[in-house]
Amino acid sequence: MKPMGTIPADFAGAPLVIAGRSAEEWVDVAGDTPLFVYDFAAVARRVARFRAAFAGVDLHYAIKANPFAPLLAAMAPLVDGFDVASAGELARVTALKRGHAISFAGPGKRRDEIEAAIRAGITINLESEGEAARAIAIGDMLGLVPRLAVRVNPEIELRGSGMRMGGRASPFGVDSDRAAALAREVIESGAEWCGFHIFAGSQALDEQAIIETQAETLALAARLSEQVGVVPPLVNLGGGFGIPYFPGEVPLDIENIGAALAERLGSLPAALDGTRFAIELGRWLVGEAGVYLTRVVDRKVSRGETFIVTDGGMNHQLAASGNLGTVVRRNYPVAVATAPAGAPTEVASVVGPLCTPLDRLADRVEIPLAHPGDLIAVFMAGAYGLSASPAGFLGHPAPAEILAGGPDVPNAIFTSPKA
Amino acid sequence: MKPMGTIPADFAGAPLVIAGRSAEEWVDVAGDTPLFVYDFAAVARRVARFRAAFAGVDLHYAIKANPFAPLLAAMAPLVDGFDVASAGELARVTALKRGHAISFAGPGKRRDEIEAAIRAGITINLESEGEAARAIAIGDMLGLVPRLAVRVNPEIELRGSGMRMGGRASPFGVDSDRAAALAREVIESGAEWCGFHIFAGSQALDEQAIIETQAETLALAARLSEQVGVVPPLVNLGGGFGIPYFPGEVPLDIENIGAALAERLGSLPAALDGTRFAIELGRWLVGEAGVYLTRVVDRKVSRGETFIVTDGGMNHQLAASGNLGTVVRRNYPVAVATAPAGAPTEVASVVGPLCTPLDRLADRVEIPLAHPGDLIAVFMAGAYGLSASPAGFLGHPAPAEILAGGPDVPNAIFTSPKA
Repeated sequence: MKPMGTIPADFAGAPLVIAGRSAEEWVDVAGDTPLFVYDFAAVARRVARFRAAFAGVDLHYAIKANPFAPLLAAMAPLVDGFDVASAGELARVTALKRGHAISFAGPGKRRDEIEAAIRAGITINLESEGEAARAIAIGDMLGLVPRLAVRVNPEIELRGSGMRMGGRASPFGVDSDRAAALAREVIESGAEWCGFHIFAGSQALDEQAIIETQAETLALAARLSEQVGVVPPLVNLGGGFGIPYFPGEVPLDIENIGAALAERLGSLPAALDGTRFAIELGRWLVGEAGVYLTRVVDRKVSRGETFIVTDGGMNHQLAASGNLGTVVRRNYPVAVATAPAGAPTEVASVVGPLCTPLDRLADRVEIPLAHPGDLIAVFMAGAYGLSASPAGFLGHPAPAEILAGGPDVPNAIFTSPKA
Repeated sequence: MKPMGTIPADFAGAPLVIAGRSAEEWVDVAGDTPLFVYDFAAVARRVARFRAAFAGVDLHYAIKANPFAPLLAAMAPLVDGFDVASAGELARVTALKRGHAISFAGPGKRRDEIEAAIRAGITINLESEGEAARAIAIGDMLGLVPRLAVRVNPEIELRGSGMRMGGRASPFGVDSDRAAALAREVIESGAEWCGFHIFAGSQALDEQAIIETQAETLALAARLSEQVGVVPPLVNLGGGFGIPYFPGEVPLDIENIGAALAERLGSLPAALDGTRFAIELGRWLVGEAGVYLTRVVDRKVSRGETFIVTDGGMNHQLAASGNLGTVVRRNYPVAVATAPAGAPTEVASVVGPLCTPLDRLADRVEIPLAHPGDLIAVFMAGAYGLSASPAGFLGHPAPAEILAGGPDVPNAIFTSPKA
């Protein structure tokens, strides 16, 4: 038997209830399995918790974590900005936010993407000197003033982060020792100077590491701004707030992080006097709010092991399946959504419908006995789920996506045409 | 500097030529980058090579490797069967093949998928006793005789294969010690008995291992057939033929494998007297025929390392990017498609446009100097490329796909609506 991650408290009951409805009721809403349900109230609670912990700091949502259109529309009034990573993502939010409330980072911006960003009047986070030259030239060509920030590749590494973005040679941003010179060039070109974007890592669960990284990021921003000689309107401090996927992982105490940041923001140097600060979050806002539901289609035993076979798998949940073979495969939290409290359990593996041994949603976990017709829930499915998975692999139908609304937000359902 | 895999001989010239046209000409055909070009003549040569080496053995194409519709249409006259893994894949080939020339394997077949398969009259490779009962019941309900084979989870492991499918507890097929009993049940139900499907692994580059596995597979099929007491019409021996992606890997000498198999087939026991045999191949038929072309949008230096940033990456080429972080990241073969022979080279990394350090198509390889506007080719892109990648991730447009035809097959182009 292997352990699994902890089921989020919102969904810890049995049988599973999501936003007031049973799993089977959500399947009825969707019309079929598999499906994703995103509990908007859980997202709104995250936003409220951030606001309480980080008063005066802007909150940006990195839509790459989950670009489901109804979710974006519901989040728009709650967050200060959307961060996008392509012209395709930009198109999803131009009706929801304007100008500086949208920023665009990404190391491979095409000319047509830069043009779309300048026309929309959003902030472009420049990734290189070459991109700066292109953005300025395209602005000239269009007769529009581009709004430009510099993304910095910091000499800062976010310790313990799932994905390190700083402290090394990187395709992201310009090295910190060249960032001030690039900022000066941007300013001298007549472009609108928007500030700095400094991102040191993501998916960190070590509060102390995040606190230290934010302090170093502020110090770097101050140093750069002094070199530039202009107070930056905004410094995007990145994000990096992780969520607990695996056994033994503990949720972040963001209140500690907020308190430490508030203290630093209370004693800023003159070079940052008047600067706004933003924290850019994706996974932390939406990851735990999502549940993936898939129907059991078979139950079988092979060489003494029990397999619960479901109608959805790594084609929709690549990360939960172990990302194509990680060194040590660990289990996301899963549940038999239809099993009542106290149901008898067994040790079984939950596998998806694909013809590859990599399609495994849970490896030898203790779960209630499941039979064809039951529903399996995979938690932590709200971020980097469907959009980060090979949905076309093996030709299965696209899953439905549902935003489970609340008092102020109606439910929204996307169901795709079935094959 | 790190080595890369060997560029397939068909594409070894500089600048790159694919099926008689330059990379830039193919971009013109597609209308934009990035794009996949599949050289159908290269696929046809593979088929011819198989036919010469495996006279009398059926050739099945596992369409999961590349389900591009024009490729399937062009391959239909060349292969004896298509193997599908979902109702979606079945729908792609029902106009191209009929009846036993299509077979359907997959551990999570839904009731609607089983019904579609029975209505289409194709062979269902049963994965469990439960699935057998469902298929027989659905056949009764429809008043149609289902065509059923048994997929066997063999006690055979294909040594050195990239993906082992046998020799262990598995969601695929029924354990070999229960396969004969299930076959008897199928026969006694009045269903049409189609034989066995025995798949021990994939992506193997060790001829001797494949030869031994085929011998063990034949022996297992003979033993099972003797237990059943009925000669199976077909035994699908699986595939497992790999292709060389990485430095130091050597292509298979399939002629040796064919010669060894012919010898075994010449001295079959009575239990297999009259049985046809099929080899099911995906990657080996189409993998080397595909080239992914992406435009350089930036060239930058960070902490002394050079990055070539392209407009396509892991969103279309997950495997080439290292499958989200393998233990030891190895490089697929890549080239600067627009560089002439003898161009000066440098050591650089080729990275895609996504905001993740995992989006890297080549890690510190020696390639000709590349600048914005140049085209990068990633080879070995014909199998498990676009369909096995998270194409929606970060909202980039879908790439074009082109079947580069030949004397008998017209070019076919799929271009998606751009974002």
